[in-house]
Amino acid sequence: ADELFLISGPCVIEDEKTMMDTAEKLKEVSERMNIKIIYKSSFMKDNRSSVDFYMGPGLTKGLEMLARIKREFGFPVLSDIHYPEQVSEAAEVLDVIQIPAYLCMQTTLIVAAAKSGKVINIKHGQFLAPENMAKPAQKCVDSGNDQIILTERGYTFGYNDLIVDPRSFYHLNRTGFPVVFDITHSIRKYGIPSADKKGGAREFLPVLSRAGVASGVDGIFIETHPEPARALCDAASQLCVYDLEEFLKPLIEIHQVEVKYRERAMVEA
Amino acid sequence: ADELFLISGPCVIEDEKTMMDTAEKLKEVSERMNIKIIYKSSFMKDNRSSVDFYMGPGLTKGLEMLARIKREFGFPVLSDIHYPEQVSEAAEVLDVIQIPAYLCMQTTLIVAAAKSGKVINIKHGQFLAPENMAKPAQKCVDSGNDQIILTERGYTFGYNDLIVDPRSFYHLNRTGFPVVFDITHSIRKYGIPSADKKGGAREFLPVLSRAGVASGVDGIFIETHPEPARALCDAASQLCVYDLEEFLKPLIEIHQVEVKYRERAMVEA
Amino acid sequence: ADELFLISGPCVIEDEKTMMDTAEKLKEVSERMNIKIIYKSSFMKDNRSSVDFYMGPGLTKGLEMLARIKREFGFPVLSDIHYPEQVSEAAEVLDVIQIPAYLCMQTTLIVAAAKSGKVINIKHGQFLAPENMAKPAQKCVDSGNDQIILTERGYTFGYNDLIVDPRSFYHLNRTGFPVVFDITHSIRKYGIPSADKKGGAREFLPVLSRAGVASGVDGIFIETHPEPARALCDAASQLCVYDLEEFLKPLIEIHQVEVKYRERAMVEA
Amino acid sequence: ADELFLISGPCVIEDEKTMMDTAEKLKEVSERMNIKIIYKSSFMKDNRSSVDFYMGPGLTKGLEMLARIKREFGFPVLSDIHYPEQVSEAAEVLDVIQIPAYLCMQTTLIVAAAKSGKVINIKHGQFLAPENMAKPAQKCVDSGNDQIILTERGYTFGYNDLIVDPRSFYHLNRTGFPVVFDITHSIRKYGIPSADKKGGAREFLPVLSRAGVASGVDGIFIETHPEPARALCDAASQLCVYDLEEFLKPLIEIHQVEVKYRERAMVEA
Repeated sequence: ADELFLISGPCVIEDEKTMMDTAEKLKEVSERMNIKIIYKSSFMKDNRSSVDFYMGPGLTKGLEMLARIKREFGFPVLSDIHYPEQVSEAAEVLDVIQIPAYLCMQTTLIVAAAKSGKVINIKHGQFLAPENMAKPAQKCVDSGNDQIILTERGYTFGYNDLIVDPRSFYHLNRTGFPVVFDITHSIRKYGIPSADKKGGAREFLPVLSRAGVASGVDGIFIETHPEPARALCDAASQLCVYDLEEFLKPLIEIHQVEVKYRERAMVEA
Repeated sequence: ADELFLISGPCVIEDEKTMMDTAEKLKEVSERMNIKIIYKSSFMKDNRSSVDFYMGPGLTKGLEMLARIKREFGFPVLSDIHYPEQVSEAAEVLDVIQIPAYLCMQTTLIVAAAKSGKVINIKHGQFLAPENMAKPAQKCVDSGNDQIILTERGYTFGYNDLIVDPRSFYHLNRTGFPVVFDITHSIRKYGIPSADKKGGAREFLPVLSRAGVASGVDGIFIETHPEPARALCDAASQLCVYDLEEFLKPLIEIHQVEVKYRERAMVEA
Repeated sequence: ADELFLISGPCVIEDEKTMMDTAEKLKEVSERMNIKIIYKSSFMKDNRSSVDFYMGPGLTKGLEMLARIKREFGFPVLSDIHYPEQVSEAAEVLDVIQIPAYLCMQTTLIVAAAKSGKVINIKHGQFLAPENMAKPAQKCVDSGNDQIILTERGYTFGYNDLIVDPRSFYHLNRTGFPVVFDITHSIRKYGIPSADKKGGAREFLPVLSRAGVASGVDGIFIETHPEPARALCDAASQLCVYDLEEFLKPLIEIHQVEVKYRERAMVEA
Repeated sequence: ADELFLISGPCVIEDEKTMMDTAEKLKEVSERMNIKIIYKSSFMKDNRSSVDFYMGPGLTKGLEMLARIKREFGFPVLSDIHYPEQVSEAAEVLDVIQIPAYLCMQTTLIVAAAKSGKVINIKHGQFLAPENMAKPAQKCVDSGNDQIILTERGYTFGYNDLIVDPRSFYHLNRTGFPVVFDITHSIRKYGIPSADKKGGAREFLPVLSRAGVASGVDGIFIETHPEPARALCDAASQLCVYDLEEFLKPLIEIHQVEVKYRERAMVEA
């Protein structure tokens, strides 16, 4: 796509003020930079390291919040789902249904999501060679839905580390579906709770985002929060929403160059 | 444990004859080698590469088959589950409920399984540093169930390859729970359909199984089939059940040595 | 640096016509694009897979060829060296002495090279965490030479594959020395002879080069040859010198954007 | 080989007392356990992290010490070399000439060493797929020397970590040459000076050594020192020579089992 779009918002749905402050700032950025934003926030995090960690408000309450943001700010809204039985209720509110990376091969879930007719954003599993992402996409298509986004978020590299392989974008682009780069989860250090400052390597946000955009993407996924250090999930990796505009500037310029030369990148293969 | 135990059977539940022939041979091996066997076969494979691949007979029919094998041969039986709502029905038949590797961090699933009071076999996710396996185990314990098995099955290594790290067994043993080594899935080549001979690297079965047992395990997980080349899943990696006895001999002897010296291996740390 | 520079030329010194044709085309590109080029070609390849493969013309003859190119075309010239005793003769001709990646930790070699007073280009070892490249650089500085270039060329990723980690450029830039990205060797598939078309993955040249430049580099290293398929080394990965100009266009534009925002990338850390 | 042999001694040649105390204890272990030992100590370490670290006594003095140990204790002796011009002098004393892992592809060095007619121990490069170790072995053979040992010492796994792949032993054994497992360097943490306790992960010595021996080796390489914490190199990873006997017991027993079944391991491939 010619214009870079953004998937952004707090990692998990928190209190009303957090959600609204983030939406307000995103709205402002969207208008000033003329960039389309999909508001992202999860109603449920089902893979946290401990049963004691905050899991979100759950399906019904979470969707209420997202419906309100959609109504008040006009954003399309996105959340991930974890179980097929969440699809029908979720589809009443969500514009984009996201499949978590670790569930990207779970047939029943993808098929159920695909049949909703909504846009399906499939995260690239950290354990799946990038060219294999054509397979879950095909499961969607076989279920009658080709409204698909594929999102890169880093690949397993030794222990407790993820690496972003530029070649991954090449493979994802070959599917022909829009490609998004999730920068936030690419810097997460598993094994360290996200409440710990060492749980994310924020110093790599600029270099990774620039490399990813130059590699060829249609959108950027970056979780934002008014006060990341107090976030109830991924405190160490979210971007402060008030820093977003400056953060995006080089990405938009690199994207303009990349789009101009994208065809050649794929043709030369 | 002093005696090595075995988790074995066809990858997915197939026709009656396949299931019974395998059980019969396993029974014979169990008695002749004086080795305890848990019969494993999945009622459902939910992460195959295509919606067109065989997924198994489903929950109800699958459990009927496993119940019959349990009744006729006296084996404890095991299958994996994928959704919390499968737990109550599954717990009526299964002695061991298995959590697939890619779902090892899914809180709702583990908690539901744990609450059944059954033994829970948690596969080590291919993307999780081995010491982090203490976390899903703790989720079980926090749900009131400490009947836990931890199963190693290889770790993501570049693209389309898994590596078995001997250090992983060290970490799993430190949890204090019984440790099992799944040899079958450690040789799987993702990205290549398992019906293709190149989908598994059977030449590594001896070396990997020996290294794993010497590293310190309580049990071995190896899928067996009367005619692997015709198996409906993992055809390239299952072991022919008629080769099982010879395959196990060195493992039992290595295990005897390892058990004798295990305490020192952990103390020296 | 504000202007991207180029290190380019045939992998190994071949016959006169190959060397001159390449130089001529590089000269033309240099002038038309206003880009500084260092002519690179090795007098000796000492780590080929077989004693039967072409190793180059050797030190004396190789330097003669490079001296001639330097004289006729005005390029600064670069070759790698493998032994300390090659330094003094090499330093009479070379403007840049290159330390091969696998030798980046070899103290005696680096110290000898450093003492020549020439610019030292140290390739990043495929087995060394990028932040550790500060160590060979320090060995140069401790030998009285801070004219250093650090060159990224990919990191070991599973078997027979290299990965380019954008974070590597972050670490190399933190040393304060100029950073170069060697695209040619990043696409090499070890274990497959470079004469085999599968020995290199040329389809990734555009995506990798763009990602690398966006990550922050001062120069690009790309081996060029008038007829790569006939090259005596790295036939599968060199770029046809006649395609160079088109290849560089997006890189120069991305570089311009990156330079504008580089300070922020490093400051935000 | 039916009997496990040992390559052991201090990492680098230190003072006389250290060398003799180690030799004395090794002699005692050799006789009591009836195990053949090759005394290993390097006259020069050329890839340390800083020019300020101890590099050893150098070629001439180092060989004097090794010659004395050979004479007084009757051990065959081994050191690595780094440059072709060291071969002739080294060959007067050494029984085994070792090629460091990072130099395993350096043609000139291997050819020169091979031509000495001595046994050549080639360490497996941390960046080379194990099956590719057939290539440096072939360079030896092509130089008229088939007295070759191949030594595994771990493979690059993410940053600052090495992994021991049991499959590597399978590949090395396929060459038909004796295979050795270097346990000491497999636990080294690069990027952390070896004088720091965190520079080695000694807790993994038992599990790794057992896994390696079960995978099929002919010998074990383990650096020993009377007081590792004071060693001038690899202080964090050497084994205290007074703990060696206990350490070897399980390895010898596992080796006996493995040898009994080795043929089958390779045939089943």
